[in-house]
Amino acid sequence: MAWRTPPRQYGAWETVAGNITEGLVERGWDVTLFATADSVTHARLHAVVERGYEEDRSIDPKVAEYLHIAEAFEHAAEFDLIHSHYDFMALAYTRLVKTPVLTTVHGFSSPRIMPVYEKYRNGYFVSISDSDRAPGLNYLATVYNGIDLALYPQRKGRGDDLIFIGRIHPDKGVHLAIETARQSGRRLLIAGIVQDTSYFRDEIQPHLDQSRIRYVGPVGVEEKNALFAQAFALIHLNTIRERFGLVLAEANAAGVPVIAMDLGSCREVIEHGVTGFLVNDVAEAVRALDGVASLQDRDCRKRVEERFSIATMVEAYERVYAKIFELEKAKRVT
Amino acid sequence: MAWRTPPRQYGAWETVAGNITEGLVERGWDVTLFATADSVTHARLHAVVERGYEEDRSIDPKVAEYLHIAEAFEHAAEFDLIHSHYDFMALAYTRLVKTPVLTTVHGFSSPRIMPVYEKYRNGYFVSISDSDRAPGLNYLATVYNGIDLALYPQRKGRGDDLIFIGRIHPDKGVHLAIETARQSGRRLLIAGIVQDTSYFRDEIQPHLDQSRIRYVGPVGVEEKNALFAQAFALIHLNTIRERFGLVLAEANAAGVPVIAMDLGSCREVIEHGVTGFLVNDVAEAVRALDGVASLQDRDCRKRVEERFSIATMVEAYERVYAKIFELEKAKRVT
Repeated sequence: MAWRTPPRQYGAWETVAGNITEGLVERGWDVTLFATADSVTHARLHAVVERGYEEDRSIDPKVAEYLHIAEAFEHAAEFDLIHSHYDFMALAYTRLVKTPVLTTVHGFSSPRIMPVYEKYRNGYFVSISDSDRAPGLNYLATVYNGIDLALYPQRKGRGDDLIFIGRIHPDKGVHLAIETARQSGRRLLIAGIVQDTSYFRDEIQPHLDQSRIRYVGPVGVEEKNALFAQAFALIHLNTIRERFGLVLAEANAAGVPVIAMDLGSCREVIEHGVTGFLVNDVAEAVRALDGVASLQDRDCRKRVEERFSIATMVEAYERVYAKIFELEKAKRVT
Repeated sequence: MAWRTPPRQYGAWETVAGNITEGLVERGWDVTLFATADSVTHARLHAVVERGYEEDRSIDPKVAEYLHIAEAFEHAAEFDLIHSHYDFMALAYTRLVKTPVLTTVHGFSSPRIMPVYEKYRNGYFVSISDSDRAPGLNYLATVYNGIDLALYPQRKGRGDDLIFIGRIHPDKGVHLAIETARQSGRRLLIAGIVQDTSYFRDEIQPHLDQSRIRYVGPVGVEEKNALFAQAFALIHLNTIRERFGLVLAEANAAGVPVIAMDLGSCREVIEHGVTGFLVNDVAEAVRALDGVASLQDRDCRKRVEERFSIATMVEAYERVYAKIFELEKAKRVT
């Protein structure tokens, strides 16, 4: 609800929710998507909020959130299952309806939200990586995020630049990408929304020079593909545990090898020595660049096709749904 | 949930919710109070949040709010009625339970919250003054806030100082109280929590001198009574429509006349020429002080006893509850 589904540019949760929706519709499911009114979907769209609150500052996020979640749960009886991507807030409604609710946890934003997960721990949960799990939650599976492979075709040839794509935030290690570029003598193109303005001003902006280290702003699919075309490697030196890392899969889909920090889920997304390299610091990242030439674009893409496609994700969710229907049936019998 | 019920010092919503609870228990109702775990009540206390989020910064207000409201509605079936003081957030749960929900609207904080009230406008609402009503809501009554008269006994004698009690915020016109004090040559004692720090720094602090204009900090019941004892009048020159003005009733209860801006509910609380004066600007406030000597402490108290006591409030709510039970019964029949 921060953004439209699918988002115009940034918005990982909305991207994944959209991909699941479209994948399910394609496979014949009857799906209603609760999202902003300007969302684009082949499912039935049910909207009570006009636009994403990040796109329209006249909207109060809290008001939009309450209206949106309540609306979905008020219609619960019309559905066999509610698949929530709305964090702990939607959990608070789950015991007020009979319809089972599956929550995909896209990330635990703070230890302070854990009391809600603890209260509702016996609900149904999916993690987006084995690494991003909280103890005690009733996880039915890990389902990796799937991307729309058609949006990220394998590029024709390889470029020479390093690229960074992601939120400009210390968590994403943009400053480490800059250091890697400096030490390797390669050009770096930085793309993404500025989420932490003081970090951008203090740690990033002083290094920008319009040639060796450039900031190109937020990017959509088209601009991402243009970046992939001129990329030697995607540099993703996250400083905290990655929850999934959608952009790693997108880069690999286009054939771009990824140098990623070995923190959190990166080792589940990247196959070391095949689709990129897992490193522990800038020095290792710089050394890893020597190995990039030996990696094959088609190997990068192949792994994404197998593991991180929409079809793979949707099939995994279908298995989770089936499990829930079975568990619910068993409950009714006993 | 910002504060304990009843609050230790500031906290109008919690004060009123607490007074209703205690009044109902006294009259034999079986009441469960959903509030923080450190709340003090003769009702059954049901708590899932340890402390008010304004009193314990380790608590995430949003998390506390979701846990608290959900818990109450999850237990809805145990109650004949839920009386909510939790603004638009609790409204979002009302259609998910069969128990009727009465919402006392303690104030509309922003036009941006109105879409939630509009969606649930057919619920049951009580306004706390005739002045603080939104068009289109299904109001069953105005029920004035009631105060615990035992907490604010009529003072023994009258003082010479002007007093201000309230949040230090431009809405409450603290700067106008200061101007009134200057022009009338009387001393002013200012009490209350600083809610707007830049307003305090720029508009209040420069006038403080430890003798003529003094800030005494936040005050509880005891300190309020001490202020009432030395008061000539309470100055309350609100710059926006007052919603109710609990402190006006408290001052009157202690026998203190009130000079109030004629904006919003003040004319419902203060009887012009009997329990204080309604004015339109500082000049009128200064002139009104000449009339204060002719007002009687006992007349001030008498009006509060009649209109703003807990008993009066609770009896009014009992009539509202009875109306709801009737309406619900009629619904079930048809």
